[in-house]
Amino acid sequence: MTLDVTDLRISLPRLIERIEALGNVGRVDGPKGEWGCARLALTDADRDGRDLVTTWMADLGLEVTIDGVGNAVATYAGSDPSMAPVMTGSHIDTVRTGGRFDGNLGVLGGLEVVETLARAGVRPRRAIQVAFFTDEEGSRFHPDMLGSLVYVGGLALEEALDMRAHDNDARLGDELARIGYAGSMPCPAATFPHAYIELHIEQGPVLEAEGITIGAVTGVQGIYWNEFTITGQSAHAGTTPMRMRKDPMVVAAQITTEARAIATRLGGAQVATVGRLDVFPDLTNVVPARVTFTTDMRNTDGLKLDEADQAIKAFAARMAADEGCEMTMTPLAHFEPVEFNPLMIDLVEATSKRLGYSVRRMPSGAGHDAQMLARVCPTAMIFVPSINGLSHNIAEDTAPSDLEAGANVLLQTLLHLAS
Amino acid sequence: MTLDVTDLRISLPRLIERIEALGNVGRVDGPKGEWGCARLALTDADRDGRDLVTTWMADLGLEVTIDGVGNAVATYAGSDPSMAPVMTGSHIDTVRTGGRFDGNLGVLGGLEVVETLARAGVRPRRAIQVAFFTDEEGSRFHPDMLGSLVYVGGLALEEALDMRAHDNDARLGDELARIGYAGSMPCPAATFPHAYIELHIEQGPVLEAEGITIGAVTGVQGIYWNEFTITGQSAHAGTTPMRMRKDPMVVAAQITTEARAIATRLGGAQVATVGRLDVFPDLTNVVPARVTFTTDMRNTDGLKLDEADQAIKAFAARMAADEGCEMTMTPLAHFEPVEFNPLMIDLVEATSKRLGYSVRRMPSGAGHDAQMLARVCPTAMIFVPSINGLSHNIAEDTAPSDLEAGANVLLQTLLHLAS
Repeated sequence: MTLDVTDLRISLPRLIERIEALGNVGRVDGPKGEWGCARLALTDADRDGRDLVTTWMADLGLEVTIDGVGNAVATYAGSDPSMAPVMTGSHIDTVRTGGRFDGNLGVLGGLEVVETLARAGVRPRRAIQVAFFTDEEGSRFHPDMLGSLVYVGGLALEEALDMRAHDNDARLGDELARIGYAGSMPCPAATFPHAYIELHIEQGPVLEAEGITIGAVTGVQGIYWNEFTITGQSAHAGTTPMRMRKDPMVVAAQITTEARAIATRLGGAQVATVGRLDVFPDLTNVVPARVTFTTDMRNTDGLKLDEADQAIKAFAARMAADEGCEMTMTPLAHFEPVEFNPLMIDLVEATSKRLGYSVRRMPSGAGHDAQMLARVCPTAMIFVPSINGLSHNIAEDTAPSDLEAGANVLLQTLLHLAS
Repeated sequence: MTLDVTDLRISLPRLIERIEALGNVGRVDGPKGEWGCARLALTDADRDGRDLVTTWMADLGLEVTIDGVGNAVATYAGSDPSMAPVMTGSHIDTVRTGGRFDGNLGVLGGLEVVETLARAGVRPRRAIQVAFFTDEEGSRFHPDMLGSLVYVGGLALEEALDMRAHDNDARLGDELARIGYAGSMPCPAATFPHAYIELHIEQGPVLEAEGITIGAVTGVQGIYWNEFTITGQSAHAGTTPMRMRKDPMVVAAQITTEARAIATRLGGAQVATVGRLDVFPDLTNVVPARVTFTTDMRNTDGLKLDEADQAIKAFAARMAADEGCEMTMTPLAHFEPVEFNPLMIDLVEATSKRLGYSVRRMPSGAGHDAQMLARVCPTAMIFVPSINGLSHNIAEDTAPSDLEAGANVLLQTLLHLAS
């Protein structure tokens, strides 16, 4: 009886065992039995996590390389060494109150695929690489997705190594050396993969709400982060008639409601959020002198996103002027939307259907290493549901059956790409 | 030549000398030459201020009594001891960044009136009393206007003495004893004044903006302070579609703009302010879980104020429900409007005109000891302009000519009441 590789399936217990073992490194326990982990980039906990994962890689007989910014790549050799490898992966660093799945699922799902192939004696034509990239979360070093950005040549290695940690001002290059992950592989990579596919939790509520198992990710939303400071005139809340006020809080409120209105008006994937707001002097009986707040606007459609950004800035300037306030606006971040490769998206969708899983196309609202890899090779992502949409939270969770589904779609997608 | 008391005028240099001397107690200097003072109630600085003012009172030959809550009353005897005295006064405690005029002007203006009468050998039929009341600012002990509230019987002495300081948890009664101002006069007072008139800075911008010298204060605005907490669902700003959000920041913004709209709609003396707002977790890329903020609404018309309070609460509940958020509302304070005595208001207005000063009737947007005295005797207030409307600020200031005008109106009003 010949093995039909399309019948191959991963082992859920083995996958969960690795997820839990890695989660125990830097483990954080919550009051109600929920648990996650804190493995901030290039800390001792991150080193321990890296040591565990690279040991697993080596135990599977993979060749493991570390590059100049600490990205690790494990290679399961293909039958034809002349062909470029297919890559999967993600990151294993976490935020301070991180879950066990964000990033880790993509790396450990990749290892599980390789172990499944190795145990079945399946060796595709192309090599399969499982990577984890340094500092995806950006919790200790700006910018986020730093490792994959350097990997694809989007940021010079020297510049990255000179980044300073937010917490203790340590130099990234020194921290890499300290934990033993200043590797020798060139970065950016000398050659890029044939294709890149990343398994990740959704980190949002859409799949769960719609009862769908797999998200075939079409791209990553573009982002504008703006910080507005509205300066008015601090005044006594009792003695100052309404007509004599220059109240920056009213202006901030008008802009906040308009951000919601813009998202509603543009529709589609447009989202808009005011998440941070600071009032000075912040007293019940004083008309504030100054309010500083941020807008976070995202859309998969770059033109509509630009329209939203223009609209909120124009509205803000008009409202500030009407109230007699001064306004300053500082752009904090701007990323263009990333569109994944249409054939790769089709492949994820078709593979999911073939395996009997419900699937929908969807954009990613969060940033991922895949958006960096998309600059250099055909790329897509596989999403699995997040319970209650939670992420960056130790209560982050995904049902075992969804973990299994995601890893099986990854397995079959990689097999297709590598054959 | 017989003295016509209607020609009597105070001495501006003497008044300013006392204002500056008292201001030097607990003096605070600003970077641009502006200066004020910090004499929080029942601190060492307050004791030093009290010692200075009671020494001045004694030097003027006045009988000085201290009551059980530390209120000081200096009496310039009248010619007819059977008649109830006329009282003026205010407070000499300040906020942490207080000016030299808030409260102090009323007390030192009263002393200046008495010195003017004494030097001219004028002794009216009724005694004239100059009082300073304990803890008007409420910066160390709740509630504000505590001393005058106890004086008129609105709060039991024992309850007041048990109040604890916000800064060091000291008991008010112990602090009074510590600084030597736990007096023996009964409190509430055994008998109340024939009338009470208080000179004060406006602490707002109206007189200055209109180029008017004297405000004949018609009463004190009623107040509602409410604290709202809107609880939604913390969510990722990128991955959470607009339709799935429960965003408490949007609700808070809607309520803030509605507070402004309510004030505009009701018009008249209605004011509304959102001065304090706290967001959790306060991150650019997270839809907030919770927003807590306050509304401060005031009006001289109690019915309209009630209408404003009802309207904002109903609107808030509706907006929270529409967004799928929970709302809790905690009333922090409610004071009914206080109306001063119509004859007293007429007297202030007529006296100002007779002395050649421009005058307008106006409500007080801030609280004053006078509103407590209004419970027990005919009461009114005299306002003088605040430069730039500033108060509770070391840059608080009033033009010397306005100080002089206010003190002269006080002098002539007291003479009329005491004759």
